Amino acid sequence: MAASSARITTIGFDADDTLWHNESIFEASHRSYCELLSRYHDAETVERTLFATEMRNLDLFGYGIKSHALSSVETAIELSGGQIRADEIRAILDSAKQMLAHPVELLEGAAEVVPALAADYRLVLITKGDLRDQERKLRKSGLEEHFAHVEILSEKDTAVYRRILSRHGVAPEQFLMVGNSLKSDILPALDLGCRAVYVPYRITWAAEHAEHPQGSEVDGRFFQIATLRELPALLASLASAPAG
Amino acid sequence: MAASSARITTIGFDADDTLWHNESIFEASHRSYCELLSRYHDAETVERTLFATEMRNLDLFGYGIKSHALSSVETAIELSGGQIRADEIRAILDSAKQMLAHPVELLEGAAEVVPALAADYRLVLITKGDLRDQERKLRKSGLEEHFAHVEILSEKDTAVYRRILSRHGVAPEQFLMVGNSLKSDILPALDLGCRAVYVPYRITWAAEHAEHPQGSEVDGRFFQIATLRELPALLASLASAPAG
Repeated sequence: MAASSARITTIGFDADDTLWHNESIFEASHRSYCELLSRYHDAETVERTLFATEMRNLDLFGYGIKSHALSSVETAIELSGGQIRADEIRAILDSAKQMLAHPVELLEGAAEVVPALAADYRLVLITKGDLRDQERKLRKSGLEEHFAHVEILSEKDTAVYRRILSRHGVAPEQFLMVGNSLKSDILPALDLGCRAVYVPYRITWAAEHAEHPQGSEVDGRFFQIATLRELPALLASLASAPAG
Repeated sequence: MAASSARITTIGFDADDTLWHNESIFEASHRSYCELLSRYHDAETVERTLFATEMRNLDLFGYGIKSHALSSVETAIELSGGQIRADEIRAILDSAKQMLAHPVELLEGAAEVVPALAADYRLVLITKGDLRDQERKLRKSGLEEHFAHVEILSEKDTAVYRRILSRHGVAPEQFLMVGNSLKSDILPALDLGCRAVYVPYRITWAAEHAEHPQGSEVDGRFFQIATLRELPALLASLASAPAG
């Protein structure tokens, strides 16, 4: 695709598990949740049922910790056959509050790479989830000032990326998306004709699973790096020897 | 204020209880909630305690139905001294889901006035609350296409309005805000030097109470109407005989 030889002017960053830890906080909450329900069901059943509840509620609740908490309470009632006690439900609510108040822990390289790239590119934060929670994390991250725009969305698909690029007057070939979710960050950006850098996180929420992009149509547009530290060198290589 | 004689180019509309019913849905939910807890406490105590829980959780949870549901569960556990049963908590969750799935009922005049004004002004929806829920209501309202921009925010204060106007390149004297909340719609807009039209709703959530704007500094900039039907005539009078 010849278009991908255009100069990149704008970089989109996903937030959760791209700039800072997120799934690890959910993982800890899942452990205590399975523990709480262990006298009713094994951990595998608890996890599977909670995920099914979350998927069933996704259209109404959307993403984020509050949605997770409501689905957790619902699942606990279901899996305990209505025997779960009020103090145990209270523990689920307390866990959600702890998650919301959790310190923001930046991922490797984020604290150096984001400010450095902001000098040469227009950076846009593109994240989905709960409005207030995402704003809170961005504020706590210390990275807010480096983003020219912040887009907090209820879903991230091709239509959403198209709308964002159009609103900011950026052509797809000038845009590069960086994120840990193939489904929400990488595939929709590639689909639009943008370039995309996949930075896998240690764990991926089941709802974000997707196949790796393959085939000649993503040649020179799809990249994978281990940490954000590798991003500046990758961008430099794209600028000096454009693919396409 | 001479500046308010400038021509209005952009109208901001609040959403909940300005374009469509919202508090009435909460009101119905409050009734069944008080009923549920009536064997523990009288309705006044239940309402007061729930409101205190919501205010305590506001910074972590933000606005919206999911936050309301989590605070309702927490309050039910507290007011029952931990005696509330799982099926009663389930009823609280079910009520939240019903609220989220509730049909959007437009307020008087909205269906005619919004499309009519969209022909002459740039309309911006400026609402706070839950991202997904607000998007869902806007979609269901049938009014989405008439808004040039949609701003869903976690809070609506003077700084937020300043940012919105600046982003859209609108001077305060060219902007008029329409809403049912003195605190979130009217006072911050007046504070910025904009004009504001207050359209009271039948009920106001306690957290949105504020004093009526008064004094010479809002002369010719603050208006009150009974329903949106009166808005076009008010705008016409401002255009033909500017105040200030």
